[in-house]
Amino acid sequence: MVACAKVISKTIQVETKGHSDVIDVTSDVEKVLERAGLVDGIVSLFVVGSTAGITTIEYEPGLVHDIKVALDKVAPENGHYEHHERWGDDNGHSHIRASLMGPSLTIPFSNKKLLVGTWQQIVLIDFDTRPRTREVIAQIIGS
Amino acid sequence: MVACAKVISKTIQVETKGHSDVIDVTSDVEKVLERAGLVDGIVSLFVVGSTAGITTIEYEPGLVHDIKVALDKVAPENGHYEHHERWGDDNGHSHIRASLMGPSLTIPFSNKKLLVGTWQQIVLIDFDTRPRTREVIAQIIGS
Amino acid sequence: MVACAKVISKTIQVETKGHSDVIDVTSDVEKVLERAGLVDGIVSLFVVGSTAGITTIEYEPGLVHDIKVALDKVAPENGHYEHHERWGDDNGHSHIRASLMGPSLTIPFSNKKLLVGTWQQIVLIDFDTRPRTREVIAQIIGS
Repeated sequence: MVACAKVISKTIQVETKGHSDVIDVTSDVEKVLERAGLVDGIVSLFVVGSTAGITTIEYEPGLVHDIKVALDKVAPENGHYEHHERWGDDNGHSHIRASLMGPSLTIPFSNKKLLVGTWQQIVLIDFDTRPRTREVIAQIIGS
Repeated sequence: MVACAKVISKTIQVETKGHSDVIDVTSDVEKVLERAGLVDGIVSLFVVGSTAGITTIEYEPGLVHDIKVALDKVAPENGHYEHHERWGDDNGHSHIRASLMGPSLTIPFSNKKLLVGTWQQIVLIDFDTRPRTREVIAQIIGS
Repeated sequence: MVACAKVISKTIQVETKGHSDVIDVTSDVEKVLERAGLVDGIVSLFVVGSTAGITTIEYEPGLVHDIKVALDKVAPENGHYEHHERWGDDNGHSHIRASLMGPSLTIPFSNKKLLVGTWQQIVLIDFDTRPRTREVIAQIIGS
């Protein structure tokens, strides 16, 4: 007998420094999962805004550096962007990096625990060119 | 007391011009969400086919141009692809761009409204080399 | 009348060769979906670990080659990585490729069938530098 699934909504607020700041939000997600009280299901994460992304990474300073280097090849900070011409903005690379990485990530949980690897942290990357307060919506669906 | 979640399936049809055509489908997603009648949950979007992707972007002509420039660095339209040698196709870059961007995106909603940012639109990008009619499956899960 | 959704958890084990090995797991996902016995909903896939990713691709040898070429531009196998300096590892590119591709993918199903395209296969890509046994968690949510 499998129980009916429920949806429980939580919001995680994250203070960032911008400039591709990589922030480990794993413990924040664990906390909202614990408060939700569900046993098995998924946590669907979504960052509001068009200049930030969510993914997983082994959160250590080396890789935090390396991912910025890789993204700078595809969307260089000092590149030319039509977005700048039209809007007088300086964050064309921020938008492009965010759209390529994507704003959503879905993490499974079982027995009230996130099923991530030991060296796999959930991270928000804020690509914008200034500090921001970010909202990550966590829709927890399960039974 | 939290109500049991339901699944409601909708299909969104999108006409594209191909060639990395970026199409804002936000209002289409809002419409199927309204018809579904659910209050809180997620819309899980999936584009059928291996030459299109889904993400979010600030939908304005500058960034629509800029994202094509970025993707052309990773998977150039005029590059060499083994896919062409084997199948006589001309859309190797279309496949690679689609696989890197990914076909799925999950958007939360609350009080019947999508929780996207003001400048964050949901877009289908059709990377194929000809106009296509695309099907986006929207699985709406919530209560 | 729409029935309440349930969550059914399955695990798929995948043996890989590492080195950006691209493995078609579509039939594995179809099998766990069949065993789950649900009719309409989503399969939320997540690969445990920080050096593998999941996406869809037309699974044929040409594109399996081409996607490695594209990823090698962004995160070259022979590049310099701070991750190596700090940890003595050789898999900096594996981590970066995995973080960019992402560990999660959500696939809709209807009438017990995955709604993927005919030429659209679900693939695990193992970017690590050695053979691995991978766990893919499949959370099947539906009614």
